[in-house]
Amino acid sequence: MSRLDSFIRRVSAQRDCLNMVSKEMQGRTGIVLEFGLGNGRTYDHLRSLFGPEDIYVFDRQVNAHPDCIPDDDHMILGDVLQTLPAFVDRFEGRAKLAHCDIGTGDKEASIALAMKMSVYLNKLVQTGGYIVSDQDIQVDGWVVQPLPEGVKPGRYFIYQKT
Amino acid sequence: MSRLDSFIRRVSAQRDCLNMVSKEMQGRTGIVLEFGLGNGRTYDHLRSLFGPEDIYVFDRQVNAHPDCIPDDDHMILGDVLQTLPAFVDRFEGRAKLAHCDIGTGDKEASIALAMKMSVYLNKLVQTGGYIVSDQDIQVDGWVVQPLPEGVKPGRYFIYQKT
Repeated sequence: MSRLDSFIRRVSAQRDCLNMVSKEMQGRTGIVLEFGLGNGRTYDHLRSLFGPEDIYVFDRQVNAHPDCIPDDDHMILGDVLQTLPAFVDRFEGRAKLAHCDIGTGDKEASIALAMKMSVYLNKLVQTGGYIVSDQDIQVDGWVVQPLPEGVKPGRYFIYQKT
Repeated sequence: MSRLDSFIRRVSAQRDCLNMVSKEMQGRTGIVLEFGLGNGRTYDHLRSLFGPEDIYVFDRQVNAHPDCIPDDDHMILGDVLQTLPAFVDRFEGRAKLAHCDIGTGDKEASIALAMKMSVYLNKLVQTGGYIVSDQDIQVDGWVVQPLPEGVKPGRYFIYQKT
């Protein structure tokens, strides 16, 4: 499989997982956390599912399409491990969804970052809330959820905090 | 439709168009031109279809995954409108496929670039060869080809030089 093939599968898996979780959560209140703004495509998708007023985006810098940039209140700039502690103070237990698309070419470093982030995510996500991730994050109390049709296990991950 | 949705459709269309054209061309000799290396995903896909020895890639700089970088002989660095004339001198009439994924956010500029490039492409592509493009390039003698199943007209373009 070429890198183009595997990229298409991964991005489609991301979209399908977010769509599925948003359906499961219909009517639930809470904020949504997006880790990595990038070019803003996934933020735009989350916005179409949840509305911009509840979405907080974390990234080191803003490099997105001008139409896909959150306002200053919803854009948390800096190293995520530096910015998360203060964010936890503000929003503990109030997130219904955290989406972590943080993988780089360095698999070990990506998992290490995901594990460090999970300490804060566990405080932010409300009971019954979801974590959707490109990394396999194993945390006590996070229950692996079934994936959408067509998404192969290991390509993307959905957890529900119990 | 979110930017994520439309991105997935566009990249899938690209992959499906390239796959279709490669089937049509089975057994044909000639070089393959890729405009824009980017992160190297599409180059990797072309390489899986055609083999690296026939693929020449044009870009201003190399910014790709280390596994997806052509050797120096096959990487044409610089402004494409500056590098194409000398390339035409070397390879006139010898390309079986040119793939142009050159669109930026600026639609008018993208079409203008495609039209300027088409003068050189018309000299490079052999009779019966294909141009696959993210832009609608209308050139005398380039015949619009049917798209793969599931690819909506206007999302990607295939031409055969007659």
